[in-house]
Amino acid sequence: MQSNDVNSTAAGANYTEEPRAVKPEELKYNSDGLIPAVIQDARTGAVLMVGYMNRESLRRTIEGGKVCFWSRSRKVYWVKGESSGNFFEPVELYTDCDVDTLLIKVRVHGKGVACHTGRYSCFYNTIAGFGGQGSGERFD
Amino acid sequence: MQSNDVNSTAAGANYTEEPRAVKPEELKYNSDGLIPAVIQDARTGAVLMVGYMNRESLRRTIEGGKVCFWSRSRKVYWVKGESSGNFFEPVELYTDCDVDTLLIKVRVHGKGVACHTGRYSCFYNTIAGFGGQGSGERFD
Repeated sequence: MQSNDVNSTAAGANYTEEPRAVKPEELKYNSDGLIPAVIQDARTGAVLMVGYMNRESLRRTIEGGKVCFWSRSRKVYWVKGESSGNFFEPVELYTDCDVDTLLIKVRVHGKGVACHTGRYSCFYNTIAGFGGQGSGERFD
Repeated sequence: MQSNDVNSTAAGANYTEEPRAVKPEELKYNSDGLIPAVIQDARTGAVLMVGYMNRESLRRTIEGGKVCFWSRSRKVYWVKGESSGNFFEPVELYTDCDVDTLLIKVRVHGKGVACHTGRYSCFYNTIAGFGGQGSGERFD
């Protein structure tokens, strides 16, 4: 996440830092030792879910070839798809300008669905009152 | 984020709940009153950044037609692109099965770039040691 855009530069202007390969120990984990990971289908570009990782689950993800989260509710390592077979194979790993968020492009195995409801993506609910297109519709 | 996939159902099977329009007050904000928002370019599908919102910044986003975050570092509301002109117009708003994450598809205005470095997306850094393709390469 970027924290401000006061120093925004025009597209094509000099960038403030070069893209680099960030070491896992350089990432900014939160006070619980976690970093959010956005999971995107490498084939379609769809955002499938957001999970949380600690240093060890990131290591397992990279070494094991299957995305492994830290379950905040169950306090366990959790290889997504371990029981369903719908696991995520990491294809590309990125972090952002603040090195506090991961973006993982994945190949979805098994039935090709991400959500425990059987849906392709976890993001199937809309937000009530949002008319879209900048309509300014009130929601409360 | 889904917390487990023990109850995964086959694609096409009965879903455990219907998609619905979730009211902003039903969302699960964290202990700081925040919810992460994944920002995706509605046109290209690229993930541009992840920011945080509280109830009020979500209201401002919906009513104002420009994505408004809560800056955790500066403790202020922050309309992305307020100074640079590269603001995000929300086009579609989704939440996930756990109603604890937002996905906002946006139209990028101004110079069409999201990052304060002038880059299109904040996710321009790779993770060191990740060979991709499930290579299992060690990173430490």
